Amino acid sequence: MNSLTDLLNIKYPVIQAGMVWCSGWELASASSNAGILGVIGSGSMYPEVLRQHIAKCKEATDLPFGVNVPLLYPDIERQIDEIILGKVPVVITSAGNPRTHTARLKDAGITVLHVVSSAKFAEKAAAAGVDGIICEGFEAGGHNGREETTTMCLVPQVRAAVDLPLAAAGGIATGGAMLAAIALGADGVQIGSRFVASTESSAHLNFKSAVASAGEGDTLLTLKEVTPVRLLKNGFYESVRAAYGRGATAEELRSLLGKGRAKKGMFEGDLNEGELEIGQVAGLIGDVVPVATIVDRLLAEYEEARLRMRPLA
Amino acid sequence: MNSLTDLLNIKYPVIQAGMVWCSGWELASASSNAGILGVIGSGSMYPEVLRQHIAKCKEATDLPFGVNVPLLYPDIERQIDEIILGKVPVVITSAGNPRTHTARLKDAGITVLHVVSSAKFAEKAAAAGVDGIICEGFEAGGHNGREETTTMCLVPQVRAAVDLPLAAAGGIATGGAMLAAIALGADGVQIGSRFVASTESSAHLNFKSAVASAGEGDTLLTLKEVTPVRLLKNGFYESVRAAYGRGATAEELRSLLGKGRAKKGMFEGDLNEGELEIGQVAGLIGDVVPVATIVDRLLAEYEEARLRMRPLA
Repeated sequence: MNSLTDLLNIKYPVIQAGMVWCSGWELASASSNAGILGVIGSGSMYPEVLRQHIAKCKEATDLPFGVNVPLLYPDIERQIDEIILGKVPVVITSAGNPRTHTARLKDAGITVLHVVSSAKFAEKAAAAGVDGIICEGFEAGGHNGREETTTMCLVPQVRAAVDLPLAAAGGIATGGAMLAAIALGADGVQIGSRFVASTESSAHLNFKSAVASAGEGDTLLTLKEVTPVRLLKNGFYESVRAAYGRGATAEELRSLLGKGRAKKGMFEGDLNEGELEIGQVAGLIGDVVPVATIVDRLLAEYEEARLRMRPLA
Repeated sequence: MNSLTDLLNIKYPVIQAGMVWCSGWELASASSNAGILGVIGSGSMYPEVLRQHIAKCKEATDLPFGVNVPLLYPDIERQIDEIILGKVPVVITSAGNPRTHTARLKDAGITVLHVVSSAKFAEKAAAAGVDGIICEGFEAGGHNGREETTTMCLVPQVRAAVDLPLAAAGGIATGGAMLAAIALGADGVQIGSRFVASTESSAHLNFKSAVASAGEGDTLLTLKEVTPVRLLKNGFYESVRAAYGRGATAEELRSLLGKGRAKKGMFEGDLNEGELEIGQVAGLIGDVVPVATIVDRLLAEYEEARLRMRPLA
């Protein structure tokens, strides 16, 4: 037990990241049933779709679960209505100002965590009244901070800045990395990419297979002029690279990205034209397995690494 | 004792990085006398200057020390002559192909480690016959790999690829990060930035102070079209940014960089016009202290972090 497991009322200090197009009720409930915090990713759901996922998740587990809410979501008020109506125990907010919605969520009895990429934002989130912090390093998949601070450097700086329960994210897919994150000062971890390549993830099987077969150097942080995002290199990425090569403006890049590209890649399985958001740690993921297997491995690897730690002299 | 301390014949599994303009005989001998591997950075030395540093280092310590050799150094053969004549126990090669010089160094009885930024290069170095590997993540200062793999993701991939003694570098300035690196699979660490801000470093006092007062987000990896390098943001960095803004070619960037800019910044203390190579972890460094103090802190922090590690449930 530690401050993070206490806060979230879970057995192991692990949060399954709520990711667009990958994290529906099946992944979230399987994660919660495995003793970690399962999280529905609402960023790719209309409010009525989110309502269904919340209802199904509650049917599939009696344990706590959460919903991830990108605060830039166009219909954010209706998302939050559904979350409050559905009595969701935990909300993880990201990509926006936590001051706007934290009070309303907390008034409804919801535990609120906010995702940050710097100690400065962690302090702002703490001032906004959140209950816990998730700090996400440069190696993480999807949208990412502009300062490019890696998990190794970020965790100790956030730990020094705020006194709240803290989960580290970015580059974590094994129990060894989990121990590393805790050594750096975190109370636990948030894991995304590893759960994309799970049986219960709603990602297209093509995308899961691409994650399982990705090697080192196969992702890159790009589109910094629009919103920095870490992608698996593919046909779409090559178009982005070509656009940079001819000196494209932010406007041209935005129009190249267009709408629906993440859905096309991650949910519909178009590995060439789609946008495939994934973390650098994909290079360490080699198979598609059930959530329970992933959690079993994390626990065994953590304990193996912990017992390996020796005094220096 | 582990494979790295055995290989290098040192007390603690820590290598002080041999850095241009910062790592002369004073830093190297102080590091060796503190029980870690002190390393002279030969990349900023003419062969006759290196000879003097080797001789002075041997006067100042009876313990093992090393020399870092960037393999792209123009007069590399004469550098290696001096190292062999000076009976230097350890050579750390970087920035080049380890096949060219490893055999000659090993024939002279020298222990050879090679610095890599990927598992693929680690395998090539192992095939070239090196005795150990240093893998350096994206957060490290100075010159850097093109794939931008962070320490968190790099160490486990290199560990899985080669079976040699392994030191992790990039983002490590505290004992907590040292424990994290070992949890990820390393046998020890190489530390650079923290030793720049040491009393014995030959960096200009202005540069040491700038490192000690740097905050999060104050470094960035840039000049990728020339050679990727992580810099402290300053006047020179702003010129680079402006050059990118007007679509400068690699040729223009190279000419903007010019010659002698690293010396101007790091050794002569021109914080505005000089090139200031430093790691992202500078944000966690807050003072300029003697090497012995740095090593004492590392050991105490490591042990504190180790004792903090608990079973998960």
